[in-house]
This record gives sequence, C-alpha cells and structure tokens, in this order.
Amino acid sequence: MSVMNKIVYMDYNATAPAYGSVISAMSAALNHVGNPSSVHGSGRGARKLLEEAREKVARLVNVPSDWVIFTSGGTEADALALNGVDVERVLVSAVEHVAVMNARDDVDVLSVDENGIVDLKALEDRLKGDERTTLVSVVAANNETGVIQPLEEIVEICHAHGALVHSDAVQMVGKCDFDMQALGLDMISLSAHKIGGPQGVGALVKRQGVDLEAMFKGGGQERSLRGGTENLSGIVGFGAAVEEKTDYLAIKALRDDLELQIKALGATVFGDGAKRLPNTSYFAFAGMPSERQVMALDLAGVMVSAGSACSSGKVKSSHVLKAMKVEDELAGCAIRVSLGWNSTKEDIEFFVQAYTKLIERVQSRKTGRSNAA
Amino acid sequence: MSVMNKIVYMDYNATAPAYGSVISAMSAALNHVGNPSSVHGSGRGARKLLEEAREKVARLVNVPSDWVIFTSGGTEADALALNGVDVERVLVSAVEHVAVMNARDDVDVLSVDENGIVDLKALEDRLKGDERTTLVSVVAANNETGVIQPLEEIVEICHAHGALVHSDAVQMVGKCDFDMQALGLDMISLSAHKIGGPQGVGALVKRQGVDLEAMFKGGGQERSLRGGTENLSGIVGFGAAVEEKTDYLAIKALRDDLELQIKALGATVFGDGAKRLPNTSYFAFAGMPSERQVMALDLAGVMVSAGSACSSGKVKSSHVLKAMKVEDELAGCAIRVSLGWNSTKEDIEFFVQAYTKLIERVQSRKTGRSNAA
Repeated sequence: MSVMNKIVYMDYNATAPAYGSVISAMSAALNHVGNPSSVHGSGRGARKLLEEAREKVARLVNVPSDWVIFTSGGTEADALALNGVDVERVLVSAVEHVAVMNARDDVDVLSVDENGIVDLKALEDRLKGDERTTLVSVVAANNETGVIQPLEEIVEICHAHGALVHSDAVQMVGKCDFDMQALGLDMISLSAHKIGGPQGVGALVKRQGVDLEAMFKGGGQERSLRGGTENLSGIVGFGAAVEEKTDYLAIKALRDDLELQIKALGATVFGDGAKRLPNTSYFAFAGMPSERQVMALDLAGVMVSAGSACSSGKVKSSHVLKAMKVEDELAGCAIRVSLGWNSTKEDIEFFVQAYTKLIERVQSRKTGRSNAA
Repeated sequence: MSVMNKIVYMDYNATAPAYGSVISAMSAALNHVGNPSSVHGSGRGARKLLEEAREKVARLVNVPSDWVIFTSGGTEADALALNGVDVERVLVSAVEHVAVMNARDDVDVLSVDENGIVDLKALEDRLKGDERTTLVSVVAANNETGVIQPLEEIVEICHAHGALVHSDAVQMVGKCDFDMQALGLDMISLSAHKIGGPQGVGALVKRQGVDLEAMFKGGGQERSLRGGTENLSGIVGFGAAVEEKTDYLAIKALRDDLELQIKALGATVFGDGAKRLPNTSYFAFAGMPSERQVMALDLAGVMVSAGSACSSGKVKSSHVLKAMKVEDELAGCAIRVSLGWNSTKEDIEFFVQAYTKLIERVQSRKTGRSNAA
C-alpha cells in the first residue's frame, strides 16, 4: 500500500518546507557572482538584490528598510538585541524561546498566567520606581503553544517607565499581520525558515534611535551593526518567502478541525483560552509520554514535535508548560502540531487516525491492567 | 561587437562564483524538509546531510569532524575564536583581516616585515616572560597580498610559551593543502564563499581541549558552541564546494603569466618576495589611484578590487600595505586581481589589454604635462 511511505509533515514551527519560489530565487542569486560590498558592477548587482530583499522584509512588518539588519537567524538576532543594547538589566518572560532565555546569563524572568500571557501588573511593578535602564523582551507568539502576547499593552507599560521593548517575533511574523510601528516596538527578531524561507537567515529589525553595538563588526556591513559578507542567496530567499501570500485563515480552519477531533478524544489543548497563532496546536493526552508519541507517530509517517526542536534532538520537559503551571505528568505528554503553506485536509485526517490509534493502545493497556488487577 | 558586454570576473578573494555542483546540492537540500534538531525522520534526514557536510569540511583540513563548528561565515568564526576563549590578552598580526582586527577592542598588534610576514623575533619577545594567558591570531594567507605566514614556526613559538594560536585560514584553505593538525593550530576560521561555496557559511575549527564559550547559545546546537538552527542548505553547499578538485597549479600559471606582463609594464607586485597564494596578485602602478583604476576597469568589463571588499563599498587605504611600509602614494594605486576555478587564459589577456590602455592613458597625460611645462 502506498500509505506505507506517506510522510505528513506537521512541524512547521521547527522549520517550514521552503517554497518553490524561494528555491528558484536562491538558485538565481547563487548564479549571480558578486560581493555586495564590492564597488564594481558585479558587486553593485549583488547589492541591488540585497536591498530589494531588505525592502520586502521591511514591508512585511511596516518599517523603513534601513531598520532591517540581516543576521544568520532568529537566535543571532535575539542575542544581538539582548547584548547589543547598553542597559543595566534585561527582563524576559518565562515563556521565551531559549534563544532569548540563553542570550545572557543575567536575565530576570517575568511570570505568566495559565495561558502563558505575561502578567502585566507584575511587569509594571518590576519597572515602577526602579531607576535602572531596562530592556524587556517578550516573545510575540510562543513557539510551543502559539499563544500571542498583548504586545501593545506591554509596550505601553514599558515605555511609560522608560524601558525598551524587544520581541522575538520569529513565529508570528508571516503568519499574522504584524505592524511593528503600530505596536511601538523598539526591536523585533525575525527568521526566514519558519515561514518557508531558508534556514540560516533572519533579521533584527531596530527602530531608528535605538543604540546598538555589533557582536561582530568585521568589515562594517549592515550599517556597522553586523559584520561579515552578507548571506546573499539566503537573504534573497527570505525576501521571496515574505512575498508569498499563504492563506492562514484556511490553515486555521485545518487546525481548528484537528483540535475539535482530538478534544473529542479527550486531549487537553494548552493556551486554548488565549489568542493563538493560526497554525499551532499544543496538546496532551495523559498517560502517553511525549517522546513515545513522537516516535510512534514518526513510524506512522507523521512528523510532529514534543515542543521546541531547538535542543539538539533531545526531548526535554517544556519550560513553557512549567511556567503555565501545567502539571508535570500532563506536560510530559505534550506534543505540538504545527501547520503551514503545504498542509492539507488529508494531513489532518491522517494525523487524527494515527493519534486515535495511539490513544486506543494506551486505553487498552489501561483496561488490560485494570482487568489484571 | 560581442566584446562590449564581456564580463571578466577577477575578484575571487572578495567572493568566488558558486560551483554548479554547489547550487545543485543546495537546491536538493532546500527540497529536503527538516530541522536537524528534530527527532523525527525528517529531522534525522536533515541531520544526516549536516553531518556529511561536516565530514567533508573536516577532511579538507585533516581533523576529526567534531572539531568543526559551523558559523555564518569567517567573520563570525573569527569573532567566536577571539571572544570565546578565556585569555588575558590577544595578539594579532598587523596584516589581519578586519574580521580579526575588529573582533575585539583590545587586541595587541604584532609587527610584520616588508612582505607582511610576522616578525618571529618580536613575537617571541612579546610572549617571553609574560605571565598572561594569551591567544595569538595570525592570518594563514593575507586576503590582499596572498602572502602566506610561517604558521608552523608561529605555532612552535606560541606553544613553547603556552599561548594558543588561531589562524584566519579563510583565503588559504581550499586553495592550498592545509593540514591543521600537522601545523599544530588550536583554531582556524573557514569561509565557504571564498572557494565556490555560498555566502553566509563558514566554520570555526577547534582542536579538542580548547575551551570555548558560545557567543549565542540558543538551543545548544553545534555542541553548545553556536546556537541557532543550522543553515542546512548553506552548509551542504560548503560541503559540495570543498569536494571540488580545482587545479590551482593551472591558476598559478595564469597568475604568474599576468604578473610577468604587468611587471614588464612597470607595475610593482606586493609580497613578491614571499610564498603566496596561487591565485592572488596585488600590485600598483604609480600615478593611477586605486579607485579610478577599479572604476575604469569596471567600465571595460573587468571586475577587480582595490583590496578588501569588506568595507561596505568604500575604497580605503590598505592597513596591510601600511604595515608592510609601502609608501602611501604607491599604496594608493594598488589593485588586487584574484583568480579562481572559472578563470581562463582569455581573462588574463583581456585584463592585460585593459590595464595596458590605462597605463598608456596615464603616461600620455604625463607626457602631455611635460610638454606643456
């Protein structure tokens, strides 16, 4: 049966397949010879490709193109934001991606509610009457749960107390409308490969007037904020990805359908009560450890994640669910399904079938045990 | 005439054209969906591609593959080497690439001779009797002159005094045999795009036992020394580039032929008395400012550089020639021709014709002035 070899990819938040247009644009860029810093014609041609991509990325978040600093990805962008600004302390939410959490050793952690939303009152209390210059970093939408933070309110509170605000918007930008200027954010981090661009490319977008020091200056590229010859083909691929018009409403409909079915089976969906990304579902069924589920589904041809993919192949318990005060036992059974531009109704059906089989196996084992007892 | 549109690219040290095999390998990798850190089948497939590329790069410099830490390029690798080790001082040669020169604010500079070779006696004097833990960073081959440093002797002196040695080998590896273990180096930086791979990929190769701290930890990728989802397609492209067997003896013959002709015209070749890369020629003809030459040659369809391309489109006077005590007037007339895998005998002829015309123009202007005087 052909079903034996079917692969259903449902791990877009780890990395999304590259769009065909991205691969073509990158090949074309690779066929263009030239270093964007060279003054000759070949160099100027490369520079043009670079600046066109910068304008596309800038348009996506509604900022002037000279706010965009291309980096090697979201992790570097986060590190640049948190280390490049000259502040006396950095506050981050308890549900940050490890790229932010591990960017500095001295971050102070802000608590969140049961949906993983930053406690605004606690944030204000931390800022009020504290004279230290502060950067607050709050993820726009969490990579595991997809829960979206109230960035507008967060910015308002922070700015009222003179703090700068950075947001890791890697998972949100490209999937939802995102107007950096309307939100009033000082810096945001972006990543290409979460939205159908290549791995190894991202950007820190920085409002004019925010002072930043480079982590590596090199030859003064990216307005002296990020040295090194630019990753031209990757950046061009990033530009091609942001031009794609993927219907995230349709993806949301698929996700909602999936959740309806797994909830009927008894699964708990995390962050269910909050505004979430249209493509992400993070849920658990007690009694089925995450790692075993991921492996069983893998054998069935379904690629899902136990949470973040960013821990070198290890399935670790989620600090996000811990911060949301989810009980360890249930948290240990969580898996994440994340959809994207190439997801189909058939993928959802295939997943639900495979997941149902897993649950039945657990339940029959339980029943077996009960009978034996 | 078709010659009107001919482009002769002679700026390989700024960036080399990507090999066809590199572009194909990258497209194939982009068509493979998966984050190398994901535990499912797609992730494991990505991991396999990543590790195969790592083995290829490791073989190129004769080290175990787990010495290779992939980065976004040479600049990041240099910054990681110089900032990641815990030493009390860093000594660098006066002819380092800006990626090393600007990696830290507190580097101490080692003097060089008229060929740009590190003064070994001075190096030893700086190390002798100084108790501070030290990292010495010396470029393997200079990006402007192509002059090759006596790394074996440098390592011997440094290790005798307990200092670690890093070498920016970006321009040398891939063009010359390079055995990191035989040389005894502790760390080297590599870049893909200087040898026909993509821009935006490089590596820091680190001997086992050298303690290093990541600049950005993120999810603990690259054995916790360099966080962030790996640039899979770029790394695969790097692996494909190092597998190419380009005949650098043939390239050296082209370069030597070019130098013979321009010396006959009266040009001075820098570093002529030293061992140099097979592909690089850096020379000057007094009375023709670099920038004007680069532009005139550009109009003639020949892409060369005034030195390093890494200064955001600006032609600046060379700190390398300054360190070699070349007079400012002559240094201000230097241009660099660098060849590579796609260079031909016709390219050399085309260049020499264009350069001869330039010289004739300068000489007739001089004669004109003499007559008028």
